[in-house]
Amino acid sequence: MALIVQKYGGTSVGTTERIQHVADKVARYRAQGHDLVVVLSAMSGETDRLLGLARDMAPRPDPRELDVLLSTGEQVTIALLCMALKERGIDARSYTGPQIPIRTDSAFNKARIQSIGGAGLRDELAGGKVLVVAGFQGVDEEDNITTLGRGGSDTTAVALAAELNASECQIFTDVDGVYTTDPRIEPRARRLSRITFEEMLEMASLGSKVLQIRSVEFAGKFNVPLRVLSTFEDGEGTLITLEEPTMEKPLISGIAFTRDEAKLTVLGVPDRPGIAAHILGPVSAANIEVDMIVQNIGQDGSTDFTFTVHRNDYERALEIVRASAGNMEAREVSGDARIVKISLVGVGMRSHAGIASKMFQILASEGINIRMISTSEIKISVVVDEKYLELGVRALHEGFGLDTVTEEA
Amino acid sequence: MALIVQKYGGTSVGTTERIQHVADKVARYRAQGHDLVVVLSAMSGETDRLLGLARDMAPRPDPRELDVLLSTGEQVTIALLCMALKERGIDARSYTGPQIPIRTDSAFNKARIQSIGGAGLRDELAGGKVLVVAGFQGVDEEDNITTLGRGGSDTTAVALAAELNASECQIFTDVDGVYTTDPRIEPRARRLSRITFEEMLEMASLGSKVLQIRSVEFAGKFNVPLRVLSTFEDGEGTLITLEEPTMEKPLISGIAFTRDEAKLTVLGVPDRPGIAAHILGPVSAANIEVDMIVQNIGQDGSTDFTFTVHRNDYERALEIVRASAGNMEAREVSGDARIVKISLVGVGMRSHAGIASKMFQILASEGINIRMISTSEIKISVVVDEKYLELGVRALHEGFGLDTVTEEA
Repeated sequence: MALIVQKYGGTSVGTTERIQHVADKVARYRAQGHDLVVVLSAMSGETDRLLGLARDMAPRPDPRELDVLLSTGEQVTIALLCMALKERGIDARSYTGPQIPIRTDSAFNKARIQSIGGAGLRDELAGGKVLVVAGFQGVDEEDNITTLGRGGSDTTAVALAAELNASECQIFTDVDGVYTTDPRIEPRARRLSRITFEEMLEMASLGSKVLQIRSVEFAGKFNVPLRVLSTFEDGEGTLITLEEPTMEKPLISGIAFTRDEAKLTVLGVPDRPGIAAHILGPVSAANIEVDMIVQNIGQDGSTDFTFTVHRNDYERALEIVRASAGNMEAREVSGDARIVKISLVGVGMRSHAGIASKMFQILASEGINIRMISTSEIKISVVVDEKYLELGVRALHEGFGLDTVTEEA
Repeated sequence: MALIVQKYGGTSVGTTERIQHVADKVARYRAQGHDLVVVLSAMSGETDRLLGLARDMAPRPDPRELDVLLSTGEQVTIALLCMALKERGIDARSYTGPQIPIRTDSAFNKARIQSIGGAGLRDELAGGKVLVVAGFQGVDEEDNITTLGRGGSDTTAVALAAELNASECQIFTDVDGVYTTDPRIEPRARRLSRITFEEMLEMASLGSKVLQIRSVEFAGKFNVPLRVLSTFEDGEGTLITLEEPTMEKPLISGIAFTRDEAKLTVLGVPDRPGIAAHILGPVSAANIEVDMIVQNIGQDGSTDFTFTVHRNDYERALEIVRASAGNMEAREVSGDARIVKISLVGVGMRSHAGIASKMFQILASEGINIRMISTSEIKISVVVDEKYLELGVRALHEGFGLDTVTEEA
């Protein structure tokens, strides 16, 4: 008998049959005696349909009105699920963002939650109702409808779980948990039964697109246990929590990777203060996000400076850097769009030396040349040629025993 | 420079191209210096699509949740129109029912407007904004979303016009006004430039489905001049107002008809008090609406009692009446589902005798037998065999000179 916040994503409520299936699932949890708050996304495809209508109206639709439009998607699904629950004899009630209210700032299309009016929700929960809440939306101080940006329903669920002190926030999606790596690359990838918020953040930002980064950050900040589960298969999913000191952690939790990076190198830059800012300033001014940054001191008083950007931004970034390199007497600017990044993630590596060298050794033994290295406390990333992605991921997966590790319960 | 409330129906905003067209129209009115409040329906077909989703959930969807669902239809159109208006440089702002708020009772699916929070609207109008309001929806005292029932957008428009003291409430639709009769029956039917609320009520309830009855009643009650216009063609439409004493009225404004009635007759009922209630009580208890009621006193102390119902209710009504006729010693119960009703409507007939006899004469000269007659102050209705509908309407249209009358401006 606990309070659980559940969130079902767009594919989970993508058809009326699937909403019926979600109603069955909710009914089963309810039968176990749990108090339930269910957060829903729009039916998959609906947000794109609405965006299409908006683009028929104006090339850059008014942001306030875009939120009025987009927020209808979740309003449809909450009403439909409540109908299905009532049909099963379950007392349910839908809430739009404004009805709760979920107060946000006024940054239309990407608003941030500021507070949640939880009193009414607590009363209705005490009265035995299942609450069905529209994800992704809120209302600003002047009662304008706002949306939290794509994937914001996860954030809604976590924020509600924090506000209501839920014992768990369950994110139902079309995968059954977080894996040691992408099973499409390494069929022996295993589902993790547990992972820390920090690891999840590194995994998510590196391409395991299970959860919105923002919602994981939020869950970590408020210490809301987060569980990723499949809507379509039964199972325990993956629990994302704070690291427990007593927990015997495996060294490495998973291997993340991203295919869509490109790297740029400025060779022979005079090694003097401000040079990094000089190179990267114009790049960020052009709204290009920079991922990895590496600088090596050369021998002749000059330095080599390398960074990566999203592959879509590669050509533009190259042009910008070439322009500023001229003013810096750099020897040469080169780039490569056919690279990938592979990362080991694990809180266990904090307390163990030698992970990095073992990683480099495994890659070397496969003849994979490392083009760039970057490390953080719980992550080691390398950039390698595109063609080595699969080989590298599989070698590391096996080398660190990820397909065989017995996890703690 | 006047305040005008405009309402565009579902076909007028049925596609994004049509919404662009409405934006053009609004822009033209705006350029003339008018203050504008624009009320919109859902895109045509959208309400049916949403109802289909609801029926996939439950045979009788929960009424509260049905309103949460249906209200999204208008929320989509108001956002889209505002985007299109902003794209034209017009400062516009959308309002959902709850945002205004339009307060209603809690009768989900058929709520009635109780009050309108007009202060915020007046401020925004004074600030030069075009206000775009979701029709058909409101919010009850507990902030539940409600809808006014099908066609409720007309009511929203009239209520806003009354609250804001608008100089006119313009209802844009796919017909260019109110006609003397249905042009599909009588090609020489003429558009009326003016009609009174009372006449419009009789015309509307008798089958000229241009406007919601409720909105006409409402407009009459608050004396809001109502104009029916075409979204797709330019023109003056038909203005619906109070009768002005100085106005020289034509005798007859129009000929309405309905095809979907059926009549039931109880013959030889003992003529004693309470007999009408005895016959009709069980009928209305079964939620069957009764339209015309005629009773004739017979010669042998018995009476014949006839009434009409919607054709869909015919079989059920017949069964009910047969059951109660047994307890009343009635001689016979008969019925006929192949009848139609034709009505002359006109405030002018109040002050003119002989309209009824002229009507009967015209029908007789065409060999049309009248099966039932009912009159009110501004309407005479006859029931005739189904096959005479077209002939009867055309004969009366010509006989009363409706195709030639020159109207006052």
